[in-house]
Amino acid sequence: MTRPLKIAVAGLGTVGAGTLKILHDQADLLALRCGRRLAVTAVSARNQKKDRGVSIGRFTWFDDPVAMAREADADVVLELIGGADGTALAICETAIASGRHVVTANKALLAHHGTALALKAEAADLVLAYEAAVAGGIPIVKAMREGLAANRLSRVYGILNGTSNFILTQMRASGRSFDEVLAEAQELGYAESDPGFDVDGIDAGHKLAILTSLAFGCEIDFGSVHIEGIRRITALDIEYADELGYRIKLLATARRTENGIEQRVHPSMVRATAPIAYVEGVTNAVVADGDFIGSTIYEGPGAGAGPTASAVVADIIDIASGRRSPTFGIPAKSLEKLKPAPMEQHNGSYYIRLMVVDEPGVVADVAAALSDEKVSLEAFLQKARAPQEAVPVVLTTHNSNEAAVVRALDRIAKIAAVREPPCMIRIEDL
Amino acid sequence: MTRPLKIAVAGLGTVGAGTLKILHDQADLLALRCGRRLAVTAVSARNQKKDRGVSIGRFTWFDDPVAMAREADADVVLELIGGADGTALAICETAIASGRHVVTANKALLAHHGTALALKAEAADLVLAYEAAVAGGIPIVKAMREGLAANRLSRVYGILNGTSNFILTQMRASGRSFDEVLAEAQELGYAESDPGFDVDGIDAGHKLAILTSLAFGCEIDFGSVHIEGIRRITALDIEYADELGYRIKLLATARRTENGIEQRVHPSMVRATAPIAYVEGVTNAVVADGDFIGSTIYEGPGAGAGPTASAVVADIIDIASGRRSPTFGIPAKSLEKLKPAPMEQHNGSYYIRLMVVDEPGVVADVAAALSDEKVSLEAFLQKARAPQEAVPVVLTTHNSNEAAVVRALDRIAKIAAVREPPCMIRIEDL
Repeated sequence: MTRPLKIAVAGLGTVGAGTLKILHDQADLLALRCGRRLAVTAVSARNQKKDRGVSIGRFTWFDDPVAMAREADADVVLELIGGADGTALAICETAIASGRHVVTANKALLAHHGTALALKAEAADLVLAYEAAVAGGIPIVKAMREGLAANRLSRVYGILNGTSNFILTQMRASGRSFDEVLAEAQELGYAESDPGFDVDGIDAGHKLAILTSLAFGCEIDFGSVHIEGIRRITALDIEYADELGYRIKLLATARRTENGIEQRVHPSMVRATAPIAYVEGVTNAVVADGDFIGSTIYEGPGAGAGPTASAVVADIIDIASGRRSPTFGIPAKSLEKLKPAPMEQHNGSYYIRLMVVDEPGVVADVAAALSDEKVSLEAFLQKARAPQEAVPVVLTTHNSNEAAVVRALDRIAKIAAVREPPCMIRIEDL
Repeated sequence: MTRPLKIAVAGLGTVGAGTLKILHDQADLLALRCGRRLAVTAVSARNQKKDRGVSIGRFTWFDDPVAMAREADADVVLELIGGADGTALAICETAIASGRHVVTANKALLAHHGTALALKAEAADLVLAYEAAVAGGIPIVKAMREGLAANRLSRVYGILNGTSNFILTQMRASGRSFDEVLAEAQELGYAESDPGFDVDGIDAGHKLAILTSLAFGCEIDFGSVHIEGIRRITALDIEYADELGYRIKLLATARRTENGIEQRVHPSMVRATAPIAYVEGVTNAVVADGDFIGSTIYEGPGAGAGPTASAVVADIIDIASGRRSPTFGIPAKSLEKLKPAPMEQHNGSYYIRLMVVDEPGVVADVAAALSDEKVSLEAFLQKARAPQEAVPVVLTTHNSNEAAVVRALDRIAKIAAVREPPCMIRIEDL
């Protein structure tokens, strides 16, 4: 049997402690799988004394995780601290510079520095592994990088943020508002006290930027991801979606188009019969479309100690077994610069909800604004209530150009009888 | 760049031709992924002249695929002929004995000879790869062997036969009988003229036997798979399932129980809201439950040239890249002998449909037969129609022992007013 693989762990929060637990509990199974033992040698965290439910006494303690990345007796450094820059970045760079493989669960870091880190790791013949960074425990990185490697992908999309999906699921189930459900999610521990990363789409954007690179062989370009969150989704829109046969999901989509690569995270209406429409609660799901394989779906827990640590350990097993892939599916130096498709050039169908006081000519004005921009209507729903009071008017469009829809909505917003800014939700044809 | 990986292809049917097409069309992408080119050097099939839409003129032709496995200038032999024994087995054994890796799409072969072949391949430090053998294009073998490698699995189940799922889907959609829908499926090319392998559950059983080995680290034991097909499912049962909130699926399930490992393929009633209930048509899906990851789902096309060839080429890419795993997740010589859990010891809920002439005392007799065997009823549905005519009586049970249910049904079948053999369908709690 080969000598043990030595592991240094930076960060002993939920994921770090979960990883130590798996490495301990499954030690014999893992040794059988790898043909060698996996041995934690060093750890670093903020507080050495904290009770984490796992014993760390036998590991070398480092107060400074960057020093650990440089000096520990380790083949692999796990970066489980988080954050797009700062310590996390320093750990990864130092580990690579010191000839150690890196395993990270840090999507923000990869979204910002993934290409640069991959270039450094590959130049040094080291592994930079990150299965846990996208969709928690689901082995989607391995599936895209190896399982689907015979294919050119045309599209990858999914539900990549469990918190947002939980909130949307609860809003639909209970008919309550975003704010009420968010408060509940925070109480249950499904949403953080500062929920912006999740509900504003940033976390999903980080993950999408990574999937885009894997799918299309291009450099990670988080800056060109179009991001909208779910704060503006109302109970009314969820009700109308149901009536029209749709579900509202925070979808992250990357797609090859004639104009370049579209990367977008925003609330989407998807047909209620689409597989992704059934994904409820904190579950994540990813759909990858390839030229030979067609459409494949991967679904599972998107967060939590067990699932995330399961992905971290899968990466460690690959390293221990000598299984190597180019970080993003092709050598990092061959990744092309991503040519972003401008959102203005997006084409799709749209759901538009207006709050309108029912005055003569309003509908004609709205219709004219749309038809002047060549946006053609598919459906029109109006349920009049009290006169003088704004009532919802719902429109759906045929396939239209985003810029034209935005111009039409700007004009519609200025109509006196239209009392709130129009609500627009893209309809995704899946 | 390393020298090309040389490939000999045995069998140029749908999958073989599809594989040649991918290797040709994606040659540059594959070279980038692998760091070397993938070069077909030799082919063998029944008919050299047949037009397959791909040119084979530049490859060395072998009339005898076994001779090719022994003599071709190749690092890898693809066995894409099929069949549980005979030529397919000879090709694989000869390839391994001649120091060549093997990639196969042949579930029947692996179900019968998988452990023996794995032992030979691993002893010779060669790869035996078979991603295409289970669930077509879905990279489920890789997911279970590598992606979920940090977990002990407790259960794996899925829809592994597209033909049967297509037939059940169509029966439900149209209300027609098994025979009518089978005839249609044969016309459409979704079912073979001899449909037994598919509709009698044998194909799903082959695939399940492979997944069981991967899931639980045991030798493949196809002989202990309990197999029932879908021929006995009637439109009436599908209707009742709907009414009770279930769907009927041909599920393949492997589960660790106190009594050993359960392997069973049979029609199952699953809650209509379970993710697997939504899997329609020829699609395949697999659910794997692990101790740390929880439940993950993999879904996609289970057959067809493109998806199956995509899986074959994924295996080739792994070999070309030097990525190795033990054939069934742990070294073949460490696989334990499978201890089968006898089906009589299975515990679960049951759906029972009787055709009963409404005579005094019948219900009491049926109830007594069940209660004497300690099978307790959950629901009882009777919709009486004409007197003297047999009408359906539907029962569902609480958690019960299979042997007890079978004994009760034997007794019920003997009641004079019960006019057909009772129909029993297991209810799966997912």
